[in-house]
Amino acid sequence: MRIQIINPNTSVGMTEAMAASARLIALPNSEIIASTPEHGPRSIECAFDEVVAGAAMLDQIQKGKEMGADAHIVACFGDPALDAARELADAPVIGIAEAAFKLASMVGHKFAVVTTLSRTVPASEHLLHKYGYKHLCSGVRATDIPVLALEHIEPSAYNQLRDECLAAINEDGAEAIVLGCAGMSALVDRLRAELPVPIIDGVAAAVKLAESLHQLSLKTAKTGQYGAPVNKPFIGRYEHWNR
Amino acid sequence: MRIQIINPNTSVGMTEAMAASARLIALPNSEIIASTPEHGPRSIECAFDEVVAGAAMLDQIQKGKEMGADAHIVACFGDPALDAARELADAPVIGIAEAAFKLASMVGHKFAVVTTLSRTVPASEHLLHKYGYKHLCSGVRATDIPVLALEHIEPSAYNQLRDECLAAINEDGAEAIVLGCAGMSALVDRLRAELPVPIIDGVAAAVKLAESLHQLSLKTAKTGQYGAPVNKPFIGRYEHWNR
Amino acid sequence: MRIQIINPNTSVGMTEAMAASARLIALPNSEIIASTPEHGPRSIECAFDEVVAGAAMLDQIQKGKEMGADAHIVACFGDPALDAARELADAPVIGIAEAAFKLASMVGHKFAVVTTLSRTVPASEHLLHKYGYKHLCSGVRATDIPVLALEHIEPSAYNQLRDECLAAINEDGAEAIVLGCAGMSALVDRLRAELPVPIIDGVAAAVKLAESLHQLSLKTAKTGQYGAPVNKPFIGRYEHWNR
Amino acid sequence: MRIQIINPNTSVGMTEAMAASARLIALPNSEIIASTPEHGPRSIECAFDEVVAGAAMLDQIQKGKEMGADAHIVACFGDPALDAARELADAPVIGIAEAAFKLASMVGHKFAVVTTLSRTVPASEHLLHKYGYKHLCSGVRATDIPVLALEHIEPSAYNQLRDECLAAINEDGAEAIVLGCAGMSALVDRLRAELPVPIIDGVAAAVKLAESLHQLSLKTAKTGQYGAPVNKPFIGRYEHWNR
Amino acid sequence: MRIQIINPNTSVGMTEAMAASARLIALPNSEIIASTPEHGPRSIECAFDEVVAGAAMLDQIQKGKEMGADAHIVACFGDPALDAARELADAPVIGIAEAAFKLASMVGHKFAVVTTLSRTVPASEHLLHKYGYKHLCSGVRATDIPVLALEHIEPSAYNQLRDECLAAINEDGAEAIVLGCAGMSALVDRLRAELPVPIIDGVAAAVKLAESLHQLSLKTAKTGQYGAPVNKPFIGRYEHWNR
Amino acid sequence: MRIQIINPNTSVGMTEAMAASARLIALPNSEIIASTPEHGPRSIECAFDEVVAGAAMLDQIQKGKEMGADAHIVACFGDPALDAARELADAPVIGIAEAAFKLASMVGHKFAVVTTLSRTVPASEHLLHKYGYKHLCSGVRATDIPVLALEHIEPSAYNQLRDECLAAINEDGAEAIVLGCAGMSALVDRLRAELPVPIIDGVAAAVKLAESLHQLSLKTAKTGQYGAPVNKPFIGRYEHWNR
Repeated sequence: MRIQIINPNTSVGMTEAMAASARLIALPNSEIIASTPEHGPRSIECAFDEVVAGAAMLDQIQKGKEMGADAHIVACFGDPALDAARELADAPVIGIAEAAFKLASMVGHKFAVVTTLSRTVPASEHLLHKYGYKHLCSGVRATDIPVLALEHIEPSAYNQLRDECLAAINEDGAEAIVLGCAGMSALVDRLRAELPVPIIDGVAAAVKLAESLHQLSLKTAKTGQYGAPVNKPFIGRYEHWNR
Repeated sequence: MRIQIINPNTSVGMTEAMAASARLIALPNSEIIASTPEHGPRSIECAFDEVVAGAAMLDQIQKGKEMGADAHIVACFGDPALDAARELADAPVIGIAEAAFKLASMVGHKFAVVTTLSRTVPASEHLLHKYGYKHLCSGVRATDIPVLALEHIEPSAYNQLRDECLAAINEDGAEAIVLGCAGMSALVDRLRAELPVPIIDGVAAAVKLAESLHQLSLKTAKTGQYGAPVNKPFIGRYEHWNR
Repeated sequence: MRIQIINPNTSVGMTEAMAASARLIALPNSEIIASTPEHGPRSIECAFDEVVAGAAMLDQIQKGKEMGADAHIVACFGDPALDAARELADAPVIGIAEAAFKLASMVGHKFAVVTTLSRTVPASEHLLHKYGYKHLCSGVRATDIPVLALEHIEPSAYNQLRDECLAAINEDGAEAIVLGCAGMSALVDRLRAELPVPIIDGVAAAVKLAESLHQLSLKTAKTGQYGAPVNKPFIGRYEHWNR
Repeated sequence: MRIQIINPNTSVGMTEAMAASARLIALPNSEIIASTPEHGPRSIECAFDEVVAGAAMLDQIQKGKEMGADAHIVACFGDPALDAARELADAPVIGIAEAAFKLASMVGHKFAVVTTLSRTVPASEHLLHKYGYKHLCSGVRATDIPVLALEHIEPSAYNQLRDECLAAINEDGAEAIVLGCAGMSALVDRLRAELPVPIIDGVAAAVKLAESLHQLSLKTAKTGQYGAPVNKPFIGRYEHWNR
Repeated sequence: MRIQIINPNTSVGMTEAMAASARLIALPNSEIIASTPEHGPRSIECAFDEVVAGAAMLDQIQKGKEMGADAHIVACFGDPALDAARELADAPVIGIAEAAFKLASMVGHKFAVVTTLSRTVPASEHLLHKYGYKHLCSGVRATDIPVLALEHIEPSAYNQLRDECLAAINEDGAEAIVLGCAGMSALVDRLRAELPVPIIDGVAAAVKLAESLHQLSLKTAKTGQYGAPVNKPFIGRYEHWNR
Repeated sequence: MRIQIINPNTSVGMTEAMAASARLIALPNSEIIASTPEHGPRSIECAFDEVVAGAAMLDQIQKGKEMGADAHIVACFGDPALDAARELADAPVIGIAEAAFKLASMVGHKFAVVTTLSRTVPASEHLLHKYGYKHLCSGVRATDIPVLALEHIEPSAYNQLRDECLAAINEDGAEAIVLGCAGMSALVDRLRAELPVPIIDGVAAAVKLAESLHQLSLKTAKTGQYGAPVNKPFIGRYEHWNR
C-alpha cells in the first residue's frame, strides 16, 4: 500500500526525519510517500501557523490522492485541517494526535501529553476534548523547546524533555507518554530506554493505523460530513480549487 | 470606532449585504469597514471551504489592523480561524456564531440554530461544544438552502426557512432562533414579523459586542494563547507572513 | 434607553457606587436608573443571603417594568433570581456574572474569577457550570475580603486582591480576570493599570449587553420558560403578587 | 425523632395531604411536624413562584430548628432554597427531588420524571444536572395538570398522568417513575397498581432519608459552604434575620 | 426485614466486623444476615480481585434470595457486579460506594473519598463518574494501607488515615469524608471524634438505604436492564447457573 | 507474532467462527490462537453473563500469557474484565468494542452501534461513556436477535439487522456502522455490499490494533492501574490464583 505522510510545515528536514521513522516501522509492503507543502510556515507553534499550514496541506492531500495514496497521514500534532482533508480524500486520513491518543489509551490507564511550546497546550487540550480523551489524560505538559530545535536536539533540551516526562509520571500519575510533536519521532527509543512507561509517537502510531484501516478495506465515509467538498468557484491563490 | 467586518468568503455581494445590515444597526460613530478576501471560495459550506477561507481571511485581519480597526468581526457562522485571528490582532476579534449564542442565551432559555446545508450542522455542533452552549441549544436544523441562494431568496426557500424555524419552536421547544449563516442577515425583520420568538442574527450581534468591548477598553489578551504568532519563515503563497 | 441597575442588597452606598460606574461607561442616551430593594440583607455572601435578596429584588424588577425600563441588570455576582426576573420582565434581564463570563471569554482563552469570601466560591462555580463556561475558567479564587469592605477598601485589602489576580495569572494561566463582586467596579482602572491582562467588571459588561440587546430590539422570549409567572394567590408579605 | 416537612407553598390542604402520606410511611417513633409558610404563593409552578416561596420557607426552617427538628424536608420538587436552608440548619435538610432521584436510581437503570406543568420541566432538568443524574434519567415529561388540581384529581387528569407514565416506560425506556410534584404523594398506590415499574414519591423518599441520616448521626457539615449564614443587617420584611 | 450483607471477599473476620457494625446501626426489626463467598480473594484491591470476587458474590445473592432477603448489600467499595446482582435479585441491591456518595452529598457540599491502596483510586473515580458524583467530590485520596491491615489497625496506620482525611478537608476543601473501604466501618466513631466534618461509612449507609427502600416497598425494576438474566447453558464451575 | 483471541463465552462454534474471520484479516506472520473458557455461559447477553464470563476469561489470559501471546483480544462487545486482564497480562489486551470505536471514528464523523438484544444496549452505552465516544455515536440500536442465532443466521434475522443499520444511517445520521457483537464478524462482507457506509467488525479491528501495538513494541504499562494483581490468598474455585 501507499501511505502518504504529510508534514504540514515546510521544513524538508523534518519531513525527511519523520519519513525515516515511518519507514523503520512500516510493513515491508507499505510504501511511505513523504510530502512537504510548497507554501506555509517552517514550523507550527500557534493557531496562526496551524490555519495557514492547514490550508497549504490540502494541496498535498490532493497530490497524494492523484498519486494513488491508500492512506494519508497529517503529521502535525494539532491535526490541522483533518476534517477538510477527509472531505477531499477517499482513502482514510489520520491525524497523529488522534492516532497517539487511541493507542496510548490501550496500554496505560492515564496518559500524558508532553509537547513543545506552552503556546500549543490549548491545541492539545482542544483535541483531547474533541476526540473525547480528556478524562484519560493526566495532563498536557510543555517543555518550551521550539519545534525546530528538535531536529538536532541539544543535550540540555533532551534532558528537559525527559524530566518533563518524569514529572508527568511521578507527579501527575501518567502511565504512558504521548509525544506531542511529530519532530520528536526520532527520540522515542532514547526516551523508552530511560522511562518506565510506554512512549507513543504519533507518526508511528498513525502509520500502523493507516495499515490497519487499509487491510480492513475501511475508507472515509463519503455520505455525510466527510462527503466531497461542495463544488464552487475559488479565486486568487486558491483558484486551483475552482470546480 | 472602526469595526472591520470580514466576510471570509469571496462573494462581494454578500459582503455588501452584511455591511449594509451592520450599518443599520451600528452606533452613529461606528464606522463599518467591510472586507472581502482576495482569495478563496465563493461560499463556505463544508470543512474544506472553511479551512481555505480561514487562511485567506487572516490577510484581511492584517489589513484591518493596519487600517486601525478597533474590532474585527469574522462574519461566517463557522467562526473560521478565530483563534488565529486573535493571535494576529490586538483589537478584539468576534465570531458571529459566538456572538449569536451569547445574546440568544440571554433572551431565551433554549435557542435553536437554523442553518443552510446539512453539511454545516457538525460545524455548528462543534462550536456549541467548544463555547459550552450545547445544553442551551434545542438543536441545529438545516434547511438545505445553499448559501448563495440566500442573496436573492426565492419565496419557496424563504418559506422553508420559516417553516424550519417554526419546527424548532414547536417540536424542539426553541425559545429563540439563531440564524446560522451571515447571509441570512437581511431576513431577520421578515422572520421576526412572522415568528413569536426572538430572532438573532450573528452579524448584528457581533457588531454590538464589538462596540461593547471597545467602549469597555477590552482588547485581546496578548499574554497567553492569543499572544502574537511566533516569528518564523513562511514560503510560497504565504511568504508575506515571513518574519 | 432606560437601564435599571438593581443592587440586590440593601447597601445604598454600594448601589450608588455601581450606578456611578455604570454611568461612566453607558452611552450618552442610556439613562441609568439605580434601584435598591427595601427589604433584605446589607450584602450577599452566602446562599441564604442570595435567596432572601433574590425574593426582595423581584419587587424592583416590577418597579423597573412600571417605570418603563428597557433592560434590567441584576447587579450581584451570584445572578440571584435571574430566571424569575426574566419571567416577570418583558425587557431583557442581565446577570452580571453571565455578562462578565461572556465578554471575558472573547478576549482571553481562559479567564479567572477573583471574588470576595471563600463562601461564595461554590456560587461562582455553579454559575460557570450553569452557563457552560467551566472549561474556559482557569479557576475561582477568593480573597476573603467582605463585600462591604470593598466600599472604602484598605490598602492591604487592595493588595490582597491584586495579588490574588496575579496568582491567577501566574499560577493558573488566567488570560483575563473577571471581578467576582459588583462592589469591585470602582477598582477596575486601578487593577488594569497594574495587571497585564484584561480586567472585566460585570456591572460594566452588563450595561453594554443591555444596550446591545436593546439596540437589536431583542426582548425576553415570553413563549416558554420565561413566560409570565402563572397567576395565583399570594399571601402575607408577598400578597402584592396576588393575581 | 422529629422530622419537619415544609410545604413551601401556602396551600394548607396540600401540606396536610403530604403530612398524612409522610405519617403513613414514617417509623413509629418519627414525629412528623408539618409546616406551611405564612407568606408566598399557593402553588409553585415557575421560577418566580420558587424564588418567593424559597425565601418564605426559610422562616419555617428557623421555626423547625427552634422546635428541635432532627431533620427538615423541603417538600417541593424544585428543591427551592435548599442550599440556603442547609446554611441555616444544623440538622440535615433534604429536598424531595434529590431524595427521589437517589432512591429511583437504585431500583431502575433509567428513571423518568413525570411532572405537572411544562413550565416546570427546566427546573427538573436543572436539578438533574446539578445533582449529576442527567445520564440516568430517560426524560422529564409534563402532564400540564396544575399543581392545585392534584388535590382532588379528576379522572381525566389522573388518566393523563398515568398515560404519561406509560409513555415514559414504553417510548423512553424508563424503568422507574419519579413523581415530579409533592402533590402527587397520594397517587402513588393507585399508579403502582397500574404500572409495571417502581413509582417513587419524593416526600416518602425524603422521610426515609431523613430517618436514615438521623440514625447515622449525620448532620449538615458546618465547616464550608453550608456553614451558618454570615451575620449582617437585614431590613424591611426580612428584619427578623438581622444579626 | 432481612438484610443480607455480602462481603465479596473471603475474609470471614471482615464479614463479621462489618455485620457487627451493621447490627449496631440497624433498626430493631432488621435482621442482618452476613454472607461470605466460598470462593475468591481474601481482599479486593485491584480490578483482577474485583472481577473474581464479583463472580463469586453472585452465588451469595442467589442464596440470599432463597433465604428471603428483603435487600442485598454488596459490601465492597468498588460495588463489584452490582448490575449483575440486580438482574439476579428481586429485592433491592445496594452498593456501599453508591450508598455513601448519596448520603454524603446531602450533608456536605463536596465530599472526599479516603481509601486504601492507590491502586483502587481509579475504581472509585470510575464509580463517581458512573453515578454522576464527580463534580461533588473534592478528590479521592489513598492511604496505601492494605485492606487486611484495617482489621487490627496499627496506631501509625490509623494516624495516616486520619491525616489523609485532614488533608482532604484542609487542602481539597472536603466538607464530608466517605470512607472508601468496608473494612473501615469500625473506625467511624474514632474518626468522627477527631474530625470536624461528617464521616460516612458505606456499610452503615447501605443498611439505612436498604431499610428505606423496603419500607417504601421499592424493589428492583424487572422490566428492563435489571430484568432476570437470560436463561442459557452454563458449564464448568458455573454449571449451577445452567437454566 | 501470536495473537490470542478469547471468546469469553463457551460456544466453541462461535470461537471458531471468529478465529476464522481473524485469520482472514491477520498478517501472514500473525498466528491466531483461539481460546474458549472452560467455564461460564454459552453467550453473553446481560450483566450477569458478563460478570461470570469475565471471571472465567481471566484463566484464558493466564494461559495465553504462558503460551507466549504477544497480544490478547477480549472478543465480546461488552469488553468484559478488560482492566483485570490488563493487570494480569504484560502484552497488550484489546477489547473489541474499544477497537471498533477507535477505527470507526476515523472513517465517519458519527458512527452507530447495531447490536443484538435490547438488554445489551446499556452495556454499549456504558462503554461509549467510559471510553469517551458518546458524542461521536449517533445511537445504539438493538435488533433483538439472540447472540447464538447469529451463527446460522436466518434470512429474516439478517434482513432485520440490515434494516436496523439502514435506520441508523437514514434516521440517526450514522456515517459508519459498528457491529455490536463478535458473532456478527462473518456478516461484514454481506452488509458492506448492501450498505453505503463503512462497516466495522470489532474482532477484525482488534486484530489490526494488536498487530499495530506489537509492531510498535507497545506493551501494557505495569507501573500504575494495570500493574500486576496484588498477591494474596484465593480459595475455592479460584484457588489457582492463590499467590
